[in-house]
Amino acid sequence: MTTLYEHGTLAALMAGNFDGTITVSDLLKHGSMGIGTFTGLDGEVVILNNEVYQAVSSGQVNHIIDMDATMPFASVHFPAEQQDITLRNVNFAKLNNDFVKEHKLANVFAFLQLSGEFKHVKIRIAPKQEKPYPTLLDVAQHQPEFTAENISGTIIGYYAPDIFGTITAAGWHLHFISDDRQFAGHLLAFDAPKLTGSFEIFDNLEQHLPIHNKEFRASEVDMATLRDGIAISEGNAE
Amino acid sequence: MTTLYEHGTLAALMAGNFDGTITVSDLLKHGSMGIGTFTGLDGEVVILNNEVYQAVSSGQVNHIIDMDATMPFASVHFPAEQQDITLRNVNFAKLNNDFVKEHKLANVFAFLQLSGEFKHVKIRIAPKQEKPYPTLLDVAQHQPEFTAENISGTIIGYYAPDIFGTITAAGWHLHFISDDRQFAGHLLAFDAPKLTGSFEIFDNLEQHLPIHNKEFRASEVDMATLRDGIAISEGNAE
Repeated sequence: MTTLYEHGTLAALMAGNFDGTITVSDLLKHGSMGIGTFTGLDGEVVILNNEVYQAVSSGQVNHIIDMDATMPFASVHFPAEQQDITLRNVNFAKLNNDFVKEHKLANVFAFLQLSGEFKHVKIRIAPKQEKPYPTLLDVAQHQPEFTAENISGTIIGYYAPDIFGTITAAGWHLHFISDDRQFAGHLLAFDAPKLTGSFEIFDNLEQHLPIHNKEFRASEVDMATLRDGIAISEGNAE
Repeated sequence: MTTLYEHGTLAALMAGNFDGTITVSDLLKHGSMGIGTFTGLDGEVVILNNEVYQAVSSGQVNHIIDMDATMPFASVHFPAEQQDITLRNVNFAKLNNDFVKEHKLANVFAFLQLSGEFKHVKIRIAPKQEKPYPTLLDVAQHQPEFTAENISGTIIGYYAPDIFGTITAAGWHLHFISDDRQFAGHLLAFDAPKLTGSFEIFDNLEQHLPIHNKEFRASEVDMATLRDGIAISEGNAE
């Protein structure tokens, strides 16, 4: 059995519940690889082999050593049944179409990690919010974007089926981090001649909800705008 | 930590994937209490303390002893943090409104079990389908309903948040079984002066997907009609 662990939901972020509800320490009990964000929607997180990196909206990348820092949303897993892959001339269009079809991902959760030389990378980084929190969609419309050319790094993240598009990001939700750990964020676009890495299909989603958090329990989700709001906030550019 | 285990999704049933993908034996490793259905959408299942009962569309209730029988969809749990409750003058309207508000269930998964004397119970039972399978919605529109008056029995099932309404039934999804185990099904309506039992809120959903099933991997979900289709197929009458 292979398990993807997810703490919190994008529906809760859409409702503006940005307070952290799991510590880094607790999160790492459920996975050594993953992505997420910190309290206040503070930045874009990459977790690689238990090392936690946070890109903040200035563009700076912090190596997180405070295991008590809290996160409202994160997805992690322990590698279990990884398959090695090599992809050539790869970009989001190729991942969204050819790769999903080839590996029959439409109805499953999957993990993807790809490393190599990128010709072009475009990322964005959510800026930290203060209370009273806006919604995820509000934040998504005002966040800095950064680009880099000819950069070595790693793409890491997950694929989720359409039917889970109210809980997490449907399709690919990928973050990027450079090999020198100086450039990272939520991946919007990329282009690379050759990337190697691994991917894994999960048969189990462990969805953890912060049931002891009062704002979470009381929050009202707008079902009419939820799916599109998440797609706009978390989608990739292509 | 309290965990609700769910095998399969209602989205897969909506797409007509009615083949069983988990054995009773494997399912019972994840819970001793729950609800579900068998291959071919054959009936309504109640699991009480590891005893598996299947109401079939003739109205008959079978005590299942074949641990190799397979199910396409089921929800089970092991009781962990149950709270005792007594409810008076209870029906679906009361559960859907007062109970959900009082216990702040809107954004969480919960289990409910209520026993006592019922003045009135209305159930329906999905009839077994043969290949090529229709959709869940087609089946839902042609299934026998039964009523009983002054009957002793138990309601058992789960509450799911709206945002999970593409994966499982949003709101209450309850089955009924009589004390004499002769009358059971998917609960459409009921009325009882006093019921006692227990409920429990989960902080974890373990959603298991049949990733090795070819039909599941290939199935195409119609997102436009999914939520409403599930609500029509699985909703209660009130």
